[in-house]
Amino acid sequence: MEKKTVVRIGYVGCGARGQGMLRECFAHMHDVEIPVICDLSEKRLLAASAILTDTGHDAPKMTRDWREVVADETLDAILFMNGWENRAAMAAASMRAGKYTGIEVGCAYDIRECWDLIDAFEETGVPVMMLENCCYGRREMMALNMVKKGLFGEIVHCDGGYMHNCRSVFTPSDIDPDVPNFRLESMERRNFHFYPTHDFGPISKVLSVNRGNRMLTLSSFASKARGLAEHIDTHLGADSPYAGMDVKCGDIVDTIITCANGETVHLRLDTTLPRPYYSRGFCVRGTKGMCTEDRRIIYLDGMAETMTENEPEFFEKYDHPLHREYVALGERGSHGGMDWLVSRAFIEAVKRGENTPIDAYDTAAWMAIGPLSELSIAHGGAPVDVPDFTRGRWLHREPVTAGKYCLDAVCEDPDTRIFDDLD
Amino acid sequence: MEKKTVVRIGYVGCGARGQGMLRECFAHMHDVEIPVICDLSEKRLLAASAILTDTGHDAPKMTRDWREVVADETLDAILFMNGWENRAAMAAASMRAGKYTGIEVGCAYDIRECWDLIDAFEETGVPVMMLENCCYGRREMMALNMVKKGLFGEIVHCDGGYMHNCRSVFTPSDIDPDVPNFRLESMERRNFHFYPTHDFGPISKVLSVNRGNRMLTLSSFASKARGLAEHIDTHLGADSPYAGMDVKCGDIVDTIITCANGETVHLRLDTTLPRPYYSRGFCVRGTKGMCTEDRRIIYLDGMAETMTENEPEFFEKYDHPLHREYVALGERGSHGGMDWLVSRAFIEAVKRGENTPIDAYDTAAWMAIGPLSELSIAHGGAPVDVPDFTRGRWLHREPVTAGKYCLDAVCEDPDTRIFDDLD
Repeated sequence: MEKKTVVRIGYVGCGARGQGMLRECFAHMHDVEIPVICDLSEKRLLAASAILTDTGHDAPKMTRDWREVVADETLDAILFMNGWENRAAMAAASMRAGKYTGIEVGCAYDIRECWDLIDAFEETGVPVMMLENCCYGRREMMALNMVKKGLFGEIVHCDGGYMHNCRSVFTPSDIDPDVPNFRLESMERRNFHFYPTHDFGPISKVLSVNRGNRMLTLSSFASKARGLAEHIDTHLGADSPYAGMDVKCGDIVDTIITCANGETVHLRLDTTLPRPYYSRGFCVRGTKGMCTEDRRIIYLDGMAETMTENEPEFFEKYDHPLHREYVALGERGSHGGMDWLVSRAFIEAVKRGENTPIDAYDTAAWMAIGPLSELSIAHGGAPVDVPDFTRGRWLHREPVTAGKYCLDAVCEDPDTRIFDDLD
Repeated sequence: MEKKTVVRIGYVGCGARGQGMLRECFAHMHDVEIPVICDLSEKRLLAASAILTDTGHDAPKMTRDWREVVADETLDAILFMNGWENRAAMAAASMRAGKYTGIEVGCAYDIRECWDLIDAFEETGVPVMMLENCCYGRREMMALNMVKKGLFGEIVHCDGGYMHNCRSVFTPSDIDPDVPNFRLESMERRNFHFYPTHDFGPISKVLSVNRGNRMLTLSSFASKARGLAEHIDTHLGADSPYAGMDVKCGDIVDTIITCANGETVHLRLDTTLPRPYYSRGFCVRGTKGMCTEDRRIIYLDGMAETMTENEPEFFEKYDHPLHREYVALGERGSHGGMDWLVSRAFIEAVKRGENTPIDAYDTAAWMAIGPLSELSIAHGGAPVDVPDFTRGRWLHREPVTAGKYCLDAVCEDPDTRIFDDLD
């Protein structure tokens, strides 16, 4: 595809996340134009438009119809920052319209949606990328860098989780009748790991899933669901619109994935019970070392055994070259840089006409975890098969080592990796 | 049964743990006599005998034949501190000989062994107790106390683990030809959670398993096994007797148990990879609060969210009355008191002629986790049924609240719980 100097984006979904990413990232990129924005809510559209005009952009066209955005022939790319419903179909339509497609994190509702993405990609060659920002988290990137350098030896197990007291997020006091509360609706009706990509995305990179490895089976287990109901009873009261809600989704959902190369992965969803801190529970275990978010410890075989947080020393030594560069050129965006970096990864791929560093196969595989976990839980924790979306190509696909946002590159001398085109 | 002032014990198994418990605990109890000790190794017998004579006891009779110990009519109780093989059969024989029976922690090899214990108990009424010291750990006891007081609300999930770099323990340099290396043999030939009671024992108490609750299903998953082989290669070398060992047991074994009351339990075995600290990963999650060993945090709903270790404050306020008493009367024994307390729990039950606080049903259920996890792993993580060793009686069995070592008692005023007969 042709190289571009400016990327014209259709922006679908102007809720909290959509507005945040505009405000913190996209509105500040000199090589990005956003001529059209889309949302079901007038209020949200106005807020998003204001973010753009306040930062010196022209007022965008506003629409409630995502199909209009897809049909706009002046656009290079579309970002779907909307809720989970129908997102795969929107993405597939966008790819079929020849537009680079980015989607926010989330799950499919059914495995068929993942195949729809793959079909669209294989038919058109147009890339789709889940904007999984945690793949660009400083800790996760350093771990990947250390894994690629072999410092942890052979990797045998990883942990991850989305452990975040979201009781208030799920039951907001400001209810907007124009937009569905897609998260709460899922909690009410479905029992599954509904948010698996913050945890599994970075692990997928560590384990080279879809590039030399793949997920084989997935088993999920849900505790009883008590936390949200008790939160509503205790904190919101009988007059709350949420009172008496019958929640199906277990408070703690544990998922175990087994991989073709013999690794196991443990994921945890933990969003509806009181807990004092946010954690992605990120942990990588190898034959020569480990890293663990929990105590912020890196341990290499032979080091004195310690209980002390030593992660900062390792950041100094083994920060991923991309993070090093990001800091050197000036920190921007939210969430410690990862929002900026994941956005740039997408934009740079569009500009260069290359595949995205999180590609269609990654996106489909990660989105599959939701419906697969639902199935396993419904069958009492029976292991379910994870589809091979690459149809066997994982055996020969190599890690991506070209492109500054590829993540997989190993760099001995970080200084040589400072690119001059980081915006 | 009659009450006793002195308990005469036959002591089977004088290895590291057997000697340690003699040296730290049993040899120092004024109401305990150990007239006979048993081991396959002459060297170990002599060492154990020396511990007794050095602490003012008569030299014990020594034998290599556990059947001789069982047949000794002068004994009140037998402690089996030996390896895992045949332990259930020994215990059943001991019970059938009318002797209170204690066994060290460990698993059955087959579910039938667990039923053998149950049969022996139900036929004879003679108690058997697994001396699971971690049930008497300060942290675990405080958590149980807080659970019983309702401070964590309804409990929905627990975590536990045996996370301990045991690579050197499994491959000792001093090989005693008289005694089998039962742990290494299991690592070599079997793929399972071989050490589940340090983690599950205290959780079983928290969840009232066998007394109002029970385990329904168990699923286990093993990572590839690389850690021990790499340790042998890297640290022991080609001349080591362990060189070239083909290990079957996965480095990380995760087990998920589902319970009749809807709780989930996650257990982890993690013994053959480099790691910088020992942990039992103990964590209790409820609708109103949680405790976690990992960051040593107790959190109750409504408290300010904090990352700071606050466990010590809670120890002051919610220490289990038994631990409080133990400290008040003078700390003794190893492992922060839990070895002493679990030993006293057994001895006191024998003296009073009462059932043991960890009883035949607990012992059988906990020992079952090993072979069940082996079965599940062999079937690709398929959930396996956990037998109901109580044959339905769990529905109506009440928590034990009598006897100072019962653990389940709730005590509003800890001072009233200071017993004068703690030795």
